[in-house]
Amino acid sequence: MGSFLGQLLRIATFGESHGPAVGVVIDGCPPGLALDLELVQRDLDRRRPGQSSLTSARGEADRVEVLSGLFEGRTTGAPLALMVRNEDARPQAYEAMRELYRPSHADYSYDAKYGTRDWRGGGRASARETVGRVAAGAVGRQWLAAHGVEVLAWVEQVGSIVAAVDPARVRFEDVEAHPTRCPDPTAAARMQEEIEATRRERDTIGGVVGCVARGVPAGLGEPVFDKLSADLAKALISLPASRGFEIGRGFAASAMRGSVHNDPFTVQDGAIRTTKNDSGGIQGGISNGEAIELRVAFKPVATIFREQETVTRAGEAVNLTASGRHDPCVVPRAVPMVEAMVLLVLWDHWLRQRAVRG
Amino acid sequence: MGSFLGQLLRIATFGESHGPAVGVVIDGCPPGLALDLELVQRDLDRRRPGQSSLTSARGEADRVEVLSGLFEGRTTGAPLALMVRNEDARPQAYEAMRELYRPSHADYSYDAKYGTRDWRGGGRASARETVGRVAAGAVGRQWLAAHGVEVLAWVEQVGSIVAAVDPARVRFEDVEAHPTRCPDPTAAARMQEEIEATRRERDTIGGVVGCVARGVPAGLGEPVFDKLSADLAKALISLPASRGFEIGRGFAASAMRGSVHNDPFTVQDGAIRTTKNDSGGIQGGISNGEAIELRVAFKPVATIFREQETVTRAGEAVNLTASGRHDPCVVPRAVPMVEAMVLLVLWDHWLRQRAVRG
Amino acid sequence: MGSFLGQLLRIATFGESHGPAVGVVIDGCPPGLALDLELVQRDLDRRRPGQSSLTSARGEADRVEVLSGLFEGRTTGAPLALMVRNEDARPQAYEAMRELYRPSHADYSYDAKYGTRDWRGGGRASARETVGRVAAGAVGRQWLAAHGVEVLAWVEQVGSIVAAVDPARVRFEDVEAHPTRCPDPTAAARMQEEIEATRRERDTIGGVVGCVARGVPAGLGEPVFDKLSADLAKALISLPASRGFEIGRGFAASAMRGSVHNDPFTVQDGAIRTTKNDSGGIQGGISNGEAIELRVAFKPVATIFREQETVTRAGEAVNLTASGRHDPCVVPRAVPMVEAMVLLVLWDHWLRQRAVRG
Amino acid sequence: MGSFLGQLLRIATFGESHGPAVGVVIDGCPPGLALDLELVQRDLDRRRPGQSSLTSARGEADRVEVLSGLFEGRTTGAPLALMVRNEDARPQAYEAMRELYRPSHADYSYDAKYGTRDWRGGGRASARETVGRVAAGAVGRQWLAAHGVEVLAWVEQVGSIVAAVDPARVRFEDVEAHPTRCPDPTAAARMQEEIEATRRERDTIGGVVGCVARGVPAGLGEPVFDKLSADLAKALISLPASRGFEIGRGFAASAMRGSVHNDPFTVQDGAIRTTKNDSGGIQGGISNGEAIELRVAFKPVATIFREQETVTRAGEAVNLTASGRHDPCVVPRAVPMVEAMVLLVLWDHWLRQRAVRG
Repeated sequence: MGSFLGQLLRIATFGESHGPAVGVVIDGCPPGLALDLELVQRDLDRRRPGQSSLTSARGEADRVEVLSGLFEGRTTGAPLALMVRNEDARPQAYEAMRELYRPSHADYSYDAKYGTRDWRGGGRASARETVGRVAAGAVGRQWLAAHGVEVLAWVEQVGSIVAAVDPARVRFEDVEAHPTRCPDPTAAARMQEEIEATRRERDTIGGVVGCVARGVPAGLGEPVFDKLSADLAKALISLPASRGFEIGRGFAASAMRGSVHNDPFTVQDGAIRTTKNDSGGIQGGISNGEAIELRVAFKPVATIFREQETVTRAGEAVNLTASGRHDPCVVPRAVPMVEAMVLLVLWDHWLRQRAVRG
Repeated sequence: MGSFLGQLLRIATFGESHGPAVGVVIDGCPPGLALDLELVQRDLDRRRPGQSSLTSARGEADRVEVLSGLFEGRTTGAPLALMVRNEDARPQAYEAMRELYRPSHADYSYDAKYGTRDWRGGGRASARETVGRVAAGAVGRQWLAAHGVEVLAWVEQVGSIVAAVDPARVRFEDVEAHPTRCPDPTAAARMQEEIEATRRERDTIGGVVGCVARGVPAGLGEPVFDKLSADLAKALISLPASRGFEIGRGFAASAMRGSVHNDPFTVQDGAIRTTKNDSGGIQGGISNGEAIELRVAFKPVATIFREQETVTRAGEAVNLTASGRHDPCVVPRAVPMVEAMVLLVLWDHWLRQRAVRG
Repeated sequence: MGSFLGQLLRIATFGESHGPAVGVVIDGCPPGLALDLELVQRDLDRRRPGQSSLTSARGEADRVEVLSGLFEGRTTGAPLALMVRNEDARPQAYEAMRELYRPSHADYSYDAKYGTRDWRGGGRASARETVGRVAAGAVGRQWLAAHGVEVLAWVEQVGSIVAAVDPARVRFEDVEAHPTRCPDPTAAARMQEEIEATRRERDTIGGVVGCVARGVPAGLGEPVFDKLSADLAKALISLPASRGFEIGRGFAASAMRGSVHNDPFTVQDGAIRTTKNDSGGIQGGISNGEAIELRVAFKPVATIFREQETVTRAGEAVNLTASGRHDPCVVPRAVPMVEAMVLLVLWDHWLRQRAVRG
Repeated sequence: MGSFLGQLLRIATFGESHGPAVGVVIDGCPPGLALDLELVQRDLDRRRPGQSSLTSARGEADRVEVLSGLFEGRTTGAPLALMVRNEDARPQAYEAMRELYRPSHADYSYDAKYGTRDWRGGGRASARETVGRVAAGAVGRQWLAAHGVEVLAWVEQVGSIVAAVDPARVRFEDVEAHPTRCPDPTAAARMQEEIEATRRERDTIGGVVGCVARGVPAGLGEPVFDKLSADLAKALISLPASRGFEIGRGFAASAMRGSVHNDPFTVQDGAIRTTKNDSGGIQGGISNGEAIELRVAFKPVATIFREQETVTRAGEAVNLTASGRHDPCVVPRAVPMVEAMVLLVLWDHWLRQRAVRG
């Protein structure tokens, strides 16, 4: 359980880090979308390991194959099944970890849940599972783009280095201009140094990803439990290593007065707008037509190449020095993952709102 | 749509601020629970307006009535329906707001969604909707208590005043000792002053609620999308005025190294434990047997009694000075709401895990 | 679990036969529906006991109360909660059955499931639970009527007496003209005699309800699992005492050749139609614009007033002669129940199709 | 939408008749099941075309490939993804049908729903979609077998030829002994003649499949909507060409008296049992420990090789004489499909009941 997401746009992902393949089934994609597979591949390439010196060295081409749902280049309303074969799996590298629990990884909690686990590279808990998410999000990106929506994420923080990014102006090219995916060049250079230093120290480091969705109409999201903000929170906290979520001003709003935080309404070009956007585009859980702005905190990757104290499955204390191929900092590759989750939630709620208003 | 939550423990809430009643249907409550209605009432009393000088003056007794699901004092497996009549509804106080949009409230976004709205006291967007959540959570509290779980929340921050609270030691009595629900007496006194000053200034102020769940066994939560952390995030961001969520170290983890953040495993009294808990009790989305620790940020209440710029439904600029009965700071009453959402998520996942392992 | 139904139009029913109340929460009702509560009451009156000499003598007025979701007479998009108080509950009549299992009733299977049961009048397994279904269906009837859909059911068979009913021509007035709800007057008179004879013999008897939905556009229903026919089957087999379901020609189609069963397409008044309707309006699980025709088989009511062999909870053989107030034949009161389930399924799929095509 | 099924044991199928592949993702399979892939292949072989002279000549080996969810031969709790490549697709055979609607096929209703369709061999509406169902059911068969449950279906009727089958005694070998899958040898021979005559006449013919589930414990199924009978009805009516469903005595129960239909309880070997099983193992929607017995009616296959009247997409009257490879009678191949759907529903409800009782 747990590998299914969405109400009207539903996805089911499958695959382990070192199994035969990873992928996704997308049900509910409206008919008639002319799918550009190169754009799907582009997002998978932004996610894949080995794309820069800052990422894991695992060598995966991650070529996507469409198993169903396309006819003459367009979606038909039938489920889209997208698959990527695992090519550079090296399970033997994990043999040493078969009987012990890597600290702050999912090894122990999976064992406690299932009484067993696929120890090859983290199995289902590996970030490789996000291939299916990113592929599905890339389909959603095309559908939403045709409806005027753009979703863009970037690296906002690595360790204690915080970038200056204006969500209203940041562009895709600015993000992709640097391997860190930080659109602030000064901060980006410092982040790169920090990540490289962290790697040299055989350590890992956390970071924050910011995201904006532009062109979202007012009215998306449902009252009470399925608020747009709530479904975004779930989707983003479901990403590996994600530890915090903010919409609009987030935790900073806690220290504010209502007279400062409230966004006054005004009329611009005949449309009702707000004069500022501390609400991050969502009021009462429902989009208000302003840009949706959110941030996601990622902890440092659990696998470090230093000696750590841990225990075996049998409960014996041991020291572990991990091997394998891992990123020193997850956030450059988390950028397309964050975008994918936001795209999937917006797509689902767009369809839900079509049902509400007809 | 949107008023249903949960997979195996499902709830459906109903009711508006100024309609006849609010309540909840709880489906999936296991049979045989001896329900103490006074404990349900206790949590409703902690949530209700008028409980202290710090809260709204609306005079609601909020007496709970059981409509179904109990037989000879015990649950039968059938849906529990719990209802509270609205007694002190004064819709006429809202007449003035019928045609205009209160800034940062849900007025405009509901209108954009539905083309209509119940303008009496916020209708379904009112915090009065949380009566059903708190009643359901209070049932979950009893079921989980019988299984060794305790969930406790407190006020951790009001404006810029931050309390010192040790999640490992804080007790219910400490929280309830002060009308702010802050268990740090020094901070509590300053918070009370701040809230009273804010009210005098006809303004509102935000805050942060912390929460701990003790006694949760390892293995709750599902991989990938239905991670325990993800479902907690959704449940908590679904609360009115909620703007941020953190599990474990949250955003602070972003600035940490893996060698510092990782929680080493050890064996204590024959059980596998961690020597510290920066993971907040959840690893890979699944509980690891340590205390679950989280924080929720609330923005200042949108309704302030100062003049604000806004527009009418017809798009005319107007000035608004709100009336009605509102809290200057939501967090003291948000404490039982946060507990309720955490209880409901844990209860649902506990039942899901019974299905996994039999 | 099990008391929630639907994807976009969701209902949750609650209440036991001899508890305080029965009712339903309806989530997903589109905004702006002007609800005529007298039409809701009309369907509840068609369902209630004591309406004629052919039904149970339990004296329930079954007055519906709206707890939420209406504002100025119209729906708002918020959940509608509808409640009916139980007034003529006489649980003491069931004391004798506390420790034994009535044959072919749900007593034993509920006990096996839950380890406990509410033995007062069947508790949740009572047909009184259908009050919530019929109330929700009556709301759906109004929404669908505004979209050109009419749903009408009738009694087609009682025991071995089979009525001649033309689904294309039968009218509501014809059905309601006779207490049996059979629109064929000759058969209706014989059915009444049969039911009265059955009652005199302290026995019960089964029957068949037919149903037609007119004005359903082509395109409702989803491929594969959520076929319109499949969701109708589930909804109708979920009714108490229901044992069989047919769409179109049903079991009779098994004996037919394709060359006979196939419905040729033609063009009438510019629209694509079929020249006959052996498909019952559904092809490939999706409506084709013709009238939807189905039939539901009901077994005889399990509670008979004759001596029967059974066992106690402790496993001792005993003889039981039941008391209480029960119908000798369920089908006259099942007519509004069948309509309600068909209405709810069509309403849900109508909203789903709005999401597909926008 | 519509390609997802189940609550705790969830499947998502994908694939079209003439696309690259068909398959299924199974989420919720408990960990530790030692999966015998040859048994999965066996059921796929029973479903595949070309297996006998009575079935379609399409030449598919239907070899199953496991993409995820297995580790060292056992399930891990992660999603199982199973795929079969389409090898003998001949879309060009369908070119002639691109612009017209085959009578009683899904061509028109899909077009009405989506505004487009994959006309190659029926696309998603093809019975080839059931490969994923049968593969998933074959996994469920192994899990349920380990828990003492056996599910067995057979052909009970072809056209007007009705077999004599005792659900209490029929065995797998009896069913598989004849290409019709009718375990009554006399009827089987007559059915074979009837099917062959039908094919010679370029026609098709309907039939009925019977099914029994043995070893199901009392207590499976949920009250009200998710009754075991209701979920079985949905699952079975979701099969291509399915038109009717009966549980226990089904429509025959309509003509019975309660005194005859009721199943008296007794005690056998210390267990509470019924002395007969007209209820078909389900009372109040919940299993009672007796064998579950049901029947499914299938209409004749829509594609016949005779001339038929129909219309084009543009609404012009045309005559159609179909080509392609099709079965003259679906029921021999429907037997493993019926078993698969029953297995999937029982598996899901078994897991749900684990959650109820712990």
